[in-house]
Amino acid sequence: MPNIKGIKLASIHSGIRYKDKLDLSLITMPNKTNVACVLTKSSTPAAPVIWCKKIKNVGKARALIVNSGNANAHTGKKGLQTVKDTVDYLSKNLGCKKNEVYVCSTGVIGEFLNTKKITSSIPKLIEQEASSWKEVAESICTTDTFIKGAKANFFIDDKNYKIVGIAKGSGMIFPNMGTMLAFIFTDLPLPSNILNKLLKEAVEKSFNSITVDGDTSTSDTCLLFSLNSKPLNESIKYMGDKRIQLFKKSLDNVLQSLAQQIVCDGEGASKFITVKVNAVKSYKIAKEIALSVANSSLVKTAIAGEDPNWGRIVMAIGKEGSSIIQDKISISINKVKITHKGALVNNYKEEVVAKKMKSKNIEIDINLGTGKESATIWTCDLTKEYIKINADYRS
Amino acid sequence: MPNIKGIKLASIHSGIRYKDKLDLSLITMPNKTNVACVLTKSSTPAAPVIWCKKIKNVGKARALIVNSGNANAHTGKKGLQTVKDTVDYLSKNLGCKKNEVYVCSTGVIGEFLNTKKITSSIPKLIEQEASSWKEVAESICTTDTFIKGAKANFFIDDKNYKIVGIAKGSGMIFPNMGTMLAFIFTDLPLPSNILNKLLKEAVEKSFNSITVDGDTSTSDTCLLFSLNSKPLNESIKYMGDKRIQLFKKSLDNVLQSLAQQIVCDGEGASKFITVKVNAVKSYKIAKEIALSVANSSLVKTAIAGEDPNWGRIVMAIGKEGSSIIQDKISISINKVKITHKGALVNNYKEEVVAKKMKSKNIEIDINLGTGKESATIWTCDLTKEYIKINADYRS
Repeated sequence: MPNIKGIKLASIHSGIRYKDKLDLSLITMPNKTNVACVLTKSSTPAAPVIWCKKIKNVGKARALIVNSGNANAHTGKKGLQTVKDTVDYLSKNLGCKKNEVYVCSTGVIGEFLNTKKITSSIPKLIEQEASSWKEVAESICTTDTFIKGAKANFFIDDKNYKIVGIAKGSGMIFPNMGTMLAFIFTDLPLPSNILNKLLKEAVEKSFNSITVDGDTSTSDTCLLFSLNSKPLNESIKYMGDKRIQLFKKSLDNVLQSLAQQIVCDGEGASKFITVKVNAVKSYKIAKEIALSVANSSLVKTAIAGEDPNWGRIVMAIGKEGSSIIQDKISISINKVKITHKGALVNNYKEEVVAKKMKSKNIEIDINLGTGKESATIWTCDLTKEYIKINADYRS
Repeated sequence: MPNIKGIKLASIHSGIRYKDKLDLSLITMPNKTNVACVLTKSSTPAAPVIWCKKIKNVGKARALIVNSGNANAHTGKKGLQTVKDTVDYLSKNLGCKKNEVYVCSTGVIGEFLNTKKITSSIPKLIEQEASSWKEVAESICTTDTFIKGAKANFFIDDKNYKIVGIAKGSGMIFPNMGTMLAFIFTDLPLPSNILNKLLKEAVEKSFNSITVDGDTSTSDTCLLFSLNSKPLNESIKYMGDKRIQLFKKSLDNVLQSLAQQIVCDGEGASKFITVKVNAVKSYKIAKEIALSVANSSLVKTAIAGEDPNWGRIVMAIGKEGSSIIQDKISISINKVKITHKGALVNNYKEEVVAKKMKSKNIEIDINLGTGKESATIWTCDLTKEYIKINADYRS
């Protein structure tokens, strides 16, 4: 993962919850850094989310501080005070405005976060040698089994620009905006209104198109920072600027890669599942039906068991959408057609599909035959390991 | 379970799927039997559901034929033909109208049901000695681990009347009407419009208030039969008749008992969970929030692991309802108060709640402090056994 000029990374072990793991990171950025922000739609948001909501319209950023092990969620006034103290302390030490300091926390919900653990670590974070992207990515992990990162390179006006993104997430993953934590950085200077628009669009087809367990986090936060370290000859000022398309493509790729990495690391996951719903009246309906399939425990356990029990897919389709006409539904798994227009195809051979189910990648294609729109959702299977992770010890 | 005069029960093993189990039942009833019917709202309903939908407004019944092992769902025209042939054959043999014959099937979705297995068994079912309620209840089971029945006795005009109900269901349980199969019989003569109204109300607070896995069956069917075998001195003709209240109370009890039995037998269940949401603006919102908690994999696995990880309850509340004010939420588990107005209570002792979590019955009480309405949902925990049942072999 390449450096982006002007960004300083610092990670330490502060001892918030975990014994030896890096658990606190500070990312500082130079003046004139713009930021776009997408936050959880949960109506019980964590204290840091409430803070980010408050400052996001300013669109400027100088620092991001993020801890793992404690989400500082449902902690009432005390939790908000912790965020306030952190922001006060950081803005003083960095000489920036309070509304340029972003705060994120991830981990257990409901426990009070010890403010001193954070503030006493800040001087160390400011003084220490630069950490790597890998270390920062590590420091934000909780039940994740691997760190998540993605990058892109593109040329605008003959200059080489970059996007670097990191993310965390494994459980409590269900799209109701930028799921879990994801931080994306670019050295392409863009105004924050354009950043926000591009981020919102990219999130819809990436983090908002994945699900692990249908549970929405109280801490979901996705931040996109644009540094001004490599000015364009002529700056980009409006959405119609054609150069935006080059950036947009790279941004979409980075976000989709991060989102898919989260699914691959879904708690207990043994398979990566793609659910495509085609030929529907609207994207919204297509997505609802794809999500119904992707969130069905019965579909997910069947895939875990490598059982081509496609009847459960029919059930999950039927749960959603009054616009469905049963006699028009066709279903394929890994390109093998199973049903055509509402019933089993002639000469259906279960053993052929059963063999395909052994693949690590499962693609379910559903054609509803009622329109031209489509949607894709990524998810993982539901295994005994998921239960073990979530029942046998606290995450 | 008591007999109801005029009802003849017959169960056999027809060999549709299972090796030795009773799998086909015929229940015949005398002339003048009224019936009310609530069916799945799935938009991919099974063939028998499509048939029941067609005849239910007639409100008369002479026979109910029900098989397990094959749901005759998503089987297209061929599936509808199987139902038609079954109805034709039965109505001829019993000398009744076609629209007085109810058909239900439960089991695997998508496989074609062999019509001959059914029709060739009908003469045997008609001729054989009376079976018991127990045998009929057994014959409709699939992944159920115990048979489900409930009864009630009540006096109207000094005469003793009865309600007998049986049900099946264990997986693919999520309320979108009378979940799974449930058949209820009474010797209190009631017109079908009153039956329908009472059944709808009773279903809302019973079968529509339970969830096992959030998956809605394509075959959900709940039938309430009222025989005319014990006429009242003055018949009940309108909803305002006070005698209806006695029946309603018994009916509600029978349906709630059956619904709770289904949850107790939820696939892999080790705990029975009651989620109560109080002090909300409307019943609808209260129910949505209760369902969000009851359907959360993370809440259900925490309970399986006897972990008082109440932060997951907060998360599930936050998933629903924009009307939530986080600072007003209070949560208790098995009567121990955990949070008060948006944060942990003073002197919270986790070990006290941890001890309560060892109970087989878990009650989560949520007070949202924003109104006067409430709702209750019953569910079960999510265990490794659920995954085993649904991943390791086909149900």
